[in-house]
Amino acid sequence: MSHHRITGVFSASATPLTADNRPDFALFTDHCRQLLAEGCHGVALLGTTGEANSFSGAERRAILEAALKAGIPADRLLPGTGVVAIPETVELTRHALSLGVTKVVMLPPFYYKGVSDDGLFAAYSQVLEKVADTRLQVILYHIPQVSGVPLSIPLIGRLIAAFPETVVGIKESAGDFNNMQAIIAAYPGFSVLAGADPLLLPLLKAGGAGCITATSNLVANSLRAVYDHVHDEARAADVEAAQARINAYRTLSNSYVQIPTIKAMVGLKTGNPAWKRTRAPLMPLGDADYAALAESYAKLP
Amino acid sequence: MSHHRITGVFSASATPLTADNRPDFALFTDHCRQLLAEGCHGVALLGTTGEANSFSGAERRAILEAALKAGIPADRLLPGTGVVAIPETVELTRHALSLGVTKVVMLPPFYYKGVSDDGLFAAYSQVLEKVADTRLQVILYHIPQVSGVPLSIPLIGRLIAAFPETVVGIKESAGDFNNMQAIIAAYPGFSVLAGADPLLLPLLKAGGAGCITATSNLVANSLRAVYDHVHDEARAADVEAAQARINAYRTLSNSYVQIPTIKAMVGLKTGNPAWKRTRAPLMPLGDADYAALAESYAKLP
Repeated sequence: MSHHRITGVFSASATPLTADNRPDFALFTDHCRQLLAEGCHGVALLGTTGEANSFSGAERRAILEAALKAGIPADRLLPGTGVVAIPETVELTRHALSLGVTKVVMLPPFYYKGVSDDGLFAAYSQVLEKVADTRLQVILYHIPQVSGVPLSIPLIGRLIAAFPETVVGIKESAGDFNNMQAIIAAYPGFSVLAGADPLLLPLLKAGGAGCITATSNLVANSLRAVYDHVHDEARAADVEAAQARINAYRTLSNSYVQIPTIKAMVGLKTGNPAWKRTRAPLMPLGDADYAALAESYAKLP
Repeated sequence: MSHHRITGVFSASATPLTADNRPDFALFTDHCRQLLAEGCHGVALLGTTGEANSFSGAERRAILEAALKAGIPADRLLPGTGVVAIPETVELTRHALSLGVTKVVMLPPFYYKGVSDDGLFAAYSQVLEKVADTRLQVILYHIPQVSGVPLSIPLIGRLIAAFPETVVGIKESAGDFNNMQAIIAAYPGFSVLAGADPLLLPLLKAGGAGCITATSNLVANSLRAVYDHVHDEARAADVEAAQARINAYRTLSNSYVQIPTIKAMVGLKTGNPAWKRTRAPLMPLGDADYAALAESYAKLP
């Protein structure tokens, strides 16, 4: 069985906004509760789908605090805390820990491109040494198509070797199944979490630990069904059907700009068009796209 | 003659660090004074060469305040204030204005890639509308090879049209001379500043406004000579020689990782090896590279 320290279905939750473009705490915490009710093991708030890097440090802290105040248990929250400057990554990580939130997803510093593994190792090491909290569990965040900063397999190995109790997993959002398999093979017990929904089932079969994905905002119950029954031969058809449903939602969300589309689809699911709002530089879907999306959405399984 | 509101030789100044990896305010302000003494019209601190995005907001504010406290006039300072989240870009820009610093260089939000011109227009517009200060003059920052977010010519035009008294120039750091020429042709009076040193002379001949470059940390006097005498036929040979000297320094700095090499070269110029320090994810040159650099540096004109 799995020796992963982090395993399950985690939602890369979207962040709703008020009419004046601030985080809508009430709607967000309702959404978190709903995600857990639909089967998510946890909510990986403040990631790429959550538009975290479009919020100030103060807003990020307020979003996490709002979730806790609304009664979401600390051990069900996995905020993104990796930002572009080491002192602010330290500050956000310490803030989470101060609230009892011990699992975080951490981007590398992402302004400079083509940086060396030595440089990324130094950056992560300095953060972890400054935070210096044995409770902390870090999920590295590999999303080179957005961050511009890939995390190589040797770098991952160096970080695990240096911080074996802290660096416990990776969110692999490049969607590169070969890379996921290689990480699993290289580092037994290290949690590889799919960042791309269609890979949940194949990754679990290959020894992966679960997922942190955007489509969970819409079909968490199907993701949970895949996760729970992947090894149950008798339910193979159900599992395949659940993964197919996930893929249908994913395909539709990727037919337009993904994050605004995910948000618009949450709005269609919940009947609350406030969900359409995004923060610049992301823009809400235009009226024509939204109308077409709504028509396609109504036909999804 | 030029109708540019921002014109001259500006240094993309490097930021020295203390042994415990904090900004070295004393060494930095000495460097700013030296850059002005060598002929820079101003210091464009806290840009890419200045490792700005590796500093926290608090550190960035402290660096700007240190320069002012050391007596650098506010109208000679052009800090970078564009960060990844609109509220923090607003905060840094307001901070500069609160100190009487009215000219800033502004990156677009740079986490998300492939964003639309509508999204970037919205981002810049929201910043400028929130800051709402008629003193402000903004130099847009086009450095797609690092930021991952190019600024298109139509976007530039939309911003000039919407904020004609505020959006007054662009730092073109893609090193794309055709792009510089196209911006000059499209928007007369808009200041196009070379971000790549070898293009200063050709850009000035083509109607550009000057430069904001890294090699100015080393050879500001030569950049100033090119700027001052570009239109003096009698001094054409001197101008060509000055540009050739600039190019020699630039070629050497780009023989290794550029920013750590620029810093190491400032250390060689000033005899202060503390300049070798960088903040992660950038790493100082290794000993072998540093020794080779020092040997090459000693032979520069």
